[in-house]
Amino acid sequence: MMSRFIIFGFLLATCSIAFALDPSPLQDFCVADPNSPVFVNGVVCKDANLVQADDFLFRGLHLMGNTSNDVGSNVTAVNVASLPGLNTLGISMARIDFAPGGINPPHTHPRASEVLTVIEGRLLAGFVTSNPENRFITKVLVKGDVFAFPQGLIHFQKNIGKGYAIAIAGLSSQNPGVITIANAVFGSNPNTAGDVLAKAFQVDIKVVHQIQSKF
Amino acid sequence: MMSRFIIFGFLLATCSIAFALDPSPLQDFCVADPNSPVFVNGVVCKDANLVQADDFLFRGLHLMGNTSNDVGSNVTAVNVASLPGLNTLGISMARIDFAPGGINPPHTHPRASEVLTVIEGRLLAGFVTSNPENRFITKVLVKGDVFAFPQGLIHFQKNIGKGYAIAIAGLSSQNPGVITIANAVFGSNPNTAGDVLAKAFQVDIKVVHQIQSKF
Amino acid sequence: MMSRFIIFGFLLATCSIAFALDPSPLQDFCVADPNSPVFVNGVVCKDANLVQADDFLFRGLHLMGNTSNDVGSNVTAVNVASLPGLNTLGISMARIDFAPGGINPPHTHPRASEVLTVIEGRLLAGFVTSNPENRFITKVLVKGDVFAFPQGLIHFQKNIGKGYAIAIAGLSSQNPGVITIANAVFGSNPNTAGDVLAKAFQVDIKVVHQIQSKF
Amino acid sequence: MMSRFIIFGFLLATCSIAFALDPSPLQDFCVADPNSPVFVNGVVCKDANLVQADDFLFRGLHLMGNTSNDVGSNVTAVNVASLPGLNTLGISMARIDFAPGGINPPHTHPRASEVLTVIEGRLLAGFVTSNPENRFITKVLVKGDVFAFPQGLIHFQKNIGKGYAIAIAGLSSQNPGVITIANAVFGSNPNTAGDVLAKAFQVDIKVVHQIQSKF
Amino acid sequence: MMSRFIIFGFLLATCSIAFALDPSPLQDFCVADPNSPVFVNGVVCKDANLVQADDFLFRGLHLMGNTSNDVGSNVTAVNVASLPGLNTLGISMARIDFAPGGINPPHTHPRASEVLTVIEGRLLAGFVTSNPENRFITKVLVKGDVFAFPQGLIHFQKNIGKGYAIAIAGLSSQNPGVITIANAVFGSNPNTAGDVLAKAFQVDIKVVHQIQSKF
Amino acid sequence: MMSRFIIFGFLLATCSIAFALDPSPLQDFCVADPNSPVFVNGVVCKDANLVQADDFLFRGLHLMGNTSNDVGSNVTAVNVASLPGLNTLGISMARIDFAPGGINPPHTHPRASEVLTVIEGRLLAGFVTSNPENRFITKVLVKGDVFAFPQGLIHFQKNIGKGYAIAIAGLSSQNPGVITIANAVFGSNPNTAGDVLAKAFQVDIKVVHQIQSKF
Repeated sequence: MMSRFIIFGFLLATCSIAFALDPSPLQDFCVADPNSPVFVNGVVCKDANLVQADDFLFRGLHLMGNTSNDVGSNVTAVNVASLPGLNTLGISMARIDFAPGGINPPHTHPRASEVLTVIEGRLLAGFVTSNPENRFITKVLVKGDVFAFPQGLIHFQKNIGKGYAIAIAGLSSQNPGVITIANAVFGSNPNTAGDVLAKAFQVDIKVVHQIQSKF
Repeated sequence: MMSRFIIFGFLLATCSIAFALDPSPLQDFCVADPNSPVFVNGVVCKDANLVQADDFLFRGLHLMGNTSNDVGSNVTAVNVASLPGLNTLGISMARIDFAPGGINPPHTHPRASEVLTVIEGRLLAGFVTSNPENRFITKVLVKGDVFAFPQGLIHFQKNIGKGYAIAIAGLSSQNPGVITIANAVFGSNPNTAGDVLAKAFQVDIKVVHQIQSKF
Repeated sequence: MMSRFIIFGFLLATCSIAFALDPSPLQDFCVADPNSPVFVNGVVCKDANLVQADDFLFRGLHLMGNTSNDVGSNVTAVNVASLPGLNTLGISMARIDFAPGGINPPHTHPRASEVLTVIEGRLLAGFVTSNPENRFITKVLVKGDVFAFPQGLIHFQKNIGKGYAIAIAGLSSQNPGVITIANAVFGSNPNTAGDVLAKAFQVDIKVVHQIQSKF
Repeated sequence: MMSRFIIFGFLLATCSIAFALDPSPLQDFCVADPNSPVFVNGVVCKDANLVQADDFLFRGLHLMGNTSNDVGSNVTAVNVASLPGLNTLGISMARIDFAPGGINPPHTHPRASEVLTVIEGRLLAGFVTSNPENRFITKVLVKGDVFAFPQGLIHFQKNIGKGYAIAIAGLSSQNPGVITIANAVFGSNPNTAGDVLAKAFQVDIKVVHQIQSKF
Repeated sequence: MMSRFIIFGFLLATCSIAFALDPSPLQDFCVADPNSPVFVNGVVCKDANLVQADDFLFRGLHLMGNTSNDVGSNVTAVNVASLPGLNTLGISMARIDFAPGGINPPHTHPRASEVLTVIEGRLLAGFVTSNPENRFITKVLVKGDVFAFPQGLIHFQKNIGKGYAIAIAGLSSQNPGVITIANAVFGSNPNTAGDVLAKAFQVDIKVVHQIQSKF
Repeated sequence: MMSRFIIFGFLLATCSIAFALDPSPLQDFCVADPNSPVFVNGVVCKDANLVQADDFLFRGLHLMGNTSNDVGSNVTAVNVASLPGLNTLGISMARIDFAPGGINPPHTHPRASEVLTVIEGRLLAGFVTSNPENRFITKVLVKGDVFAFPQGLIHFQKNIGKGYAIAIAGLSSQNPGVITIANAVFGSNPNTAGDVLAKAFQVDIKVVHQIQSKF
């Protein structure tokens, strides 16, 4: 079950997002070269003379993701890892599929804001502010609604309609990152000390171990 | 005809886009207050205590735009002007509708990169680089394809399918701006001097006046 | 108990942090004027002619905070809200006090990285990465150790020494923000839907309600 | 004629410009190493120990450019490609020479704003805004006048004096880029589809092919 | 004499400069409104509907400055204070006049890099690096030479030709600021404590007081 | 004596500082690889799979620095050179020790703002503004006081207590740089021309040579 969660977490991480903070480009394009042995902030570029139109293309965002998992959702991320032409452009995209009752569980994007539109279905969406502290801002979204999630705040969506739901999101970074809260807190590798979590979540350490065993 | 073009230009301006350059937020949110008499870089914010969930919401992106115009396309923009919660978040979104044969004419976004996905139909998309000079990078896009347009470069899309086409775009600025080339060059108010355009486009000044008369 | 947690959360939020993303200053200084009726990204400035040396000063960081609370820690934040001269400077500071066994519970700073040094005592510190997913990076810190926490990642500290512990942190934003995970997830106002949390944390909804009742 | 235009376009591209968006330096200097096989956002640096004063020097901006071409102007660019010490500094410079009646044809800089001063002669200068849409802002400039062109907007200059004219410009990027509108639209390689341009410019496709044949 | 120095210092402050760090614009233009009672990072904007072409214009950079002063130089600054259209554009310009033997004394720009070209005469220019520490990089510049000064480093120019000299500089901020070292150190108001300067400069305190008396 | 000063200057350079301008990270972390033969803006990263917790750790900030030198102070810098995990994070830290009467001589950080707290002792701190020109803003700081120094402005601290003094500073860049004014002006390598300094500081050239001989 944990490995499934890790996969979901990973998929979700690059999805429902949109930020404003990437450094600016210093040339027309700098297509990512994932095979370079040199690592920099962002990704090293291909030789501009070898760049092709295909470097700016990603295929398959119309395909439904597999939502047969514990949270009933699936994120297809189109970021610099899957679309190398996005390197230095400060933008990425994602599709989120929801089975009936499925959730895109509470998560944050450490490096991006997000704007999301509902293509199909009915979603409950929300985020929690840090100041004023822990205010929960929430809305029921229907087809055609667009909602904004500010950078770094915890947010989620839930399919509250009868059928499947689909959303498309824009994110303000080529690599927004995603931190699925439950997985990061209870499913880290190695595990975060149980007593820290017990005190933080105000539960018995047995409950912590029980939750950790599921991730 | 000119007024129609001006409307198209305006609609197109906020559409197929996605950038990386807006300044970073300095608080959780700074919802735009369009009624403030004070003007700043971006928009003055509402009092945080008066902010509501509706400030982060835009409705109606599922509605088809009216493409009965000279270019056969329509852009519905979701930027800081229509979704005030996007202020300081560095992201915006747009929907583009194309009638059969319709085009989203050559344009640039002065402050954003763009990532676009085809929801329905078949598009020819392309952009021209500045260095290497005037290289045309183009691709036929079908449903589910995602394509990236680097900041500030001239780009366009054309519906080459048999029916209507729809695209959704993410843009890396809360206010990307749009410059529809033909309108800005031949339809500015007041007009740009005809001899400048004649020399730039290597045409007789009569041709310039003829084109200007249509915008 | 919930109100105590809210207070802790608030105190912790501006503490152990250090980021890199605030917009650059456009003048020597722009001292925050918290009484202005105009709200902008960051804070409106005082008239430069009225600025005094005291505007750049905060007093009392040598004072121990009150750690008689559920988590056994206390954060004293020196950010733009308490030191107005920090407006536009992209930096802030914090002191964290820990009772024996006390924790600075798992939290993120949505807008900053952090660098922290141990002044007194012995801390267990750690953060969880988003990619590679959920890798837990941890270290025991003693007096004189300095540790870095990247922007937006979940991190915590625990006093594992016998006496009180003290840390000083630098943060890369004038207003880093703090999201105490447990409080934001289980103590939001209004509450996040229980079934969403039950599915996300893989626990029975009764456990969710039980945890929520404590915040 | 096309090759001449390409040369002009290239020369013009790095000229009359000045922006605000390059990433900040992270060390005193990072002199560009154009021979590096590694490509990054901007340019890889030389070993700091091998840097010489000459790396910060460009010679010959007092020399008049050759304006014997179709537009009657010439741009001498001093950017990171010709002055490697500008790498990471976010600034560049250019000289523009105009024959009598010559124009620096309508163009944009995708990554910079520009400030230009007239050293000799009399110029008509102008730019077109994107919002309010297509407003043409124009001024006659004489010796000693300084004019600002905002980032990404279409602008041009024309020599309206009797003799030669000279301008010096500052640009807010180490590599502003230049898109000469006519060349990019009608002289791209390969050509942009004629029917797209015919519809965008509201002209017969024969006119499009006629213009394309000149570039 | 001190007041003269203060004037020079002020004039010099906005001159020979060029940086890369201003926040990006969020609209086409944001013309500075210096009469606004509201102060922000940068300057509050005029209503866009009231903006005129003159807001982007500065006149008189062809005029020689008055170099009849202690350092024999004069700086004419074209920054946001004198050309309001530069607000949010991240660029400014300056003209520096040198009498024979005149110097633009050692100074830094806290918020900009600079690129400078010699219009007339012969200059000795140099800057001192911080790392490697205190390396002096210097060059004799003649007409047509362009030289780069990295952000925040101490630099100067001296007229080593027989006649007057003129330079034009581009700077990478709308308000680079200028700190003339001697004036800031020995001519501050109130004075910096003499014993601090005596120890820093390794001179007798009498020498400090003697220097201070001249500013 | 000069070499001692150079050492002090170097140590001081990375100390009492705190800025806001580094480019944003594009991944969770990018640990500096100081052994890479490739140089970029900032530092090339280690392979993420080889990163260890120790890469985020610096040890020994509790140790008193050796203040037996001409200025009676010592700076221990914790920046990207000594703590590789700070690469891309936009933050650094420093400890400053002062012997009785010792000074951290006037200096600037070309790329950072600073926030400093007094851990022990009594300091006189101050900075000089550039606009309003040369205004000296100063304050006596005691234990627990926190003071802010804006980016690029000349500032200093002096121990005015009876015993040793200690301060901890946060700086808003991974590599703020430090320019110790006296050393950079009078101790550069090679020397800055004496007549330039004589005119700038309004002293006889003999005094300049005398000061230069001490650095």
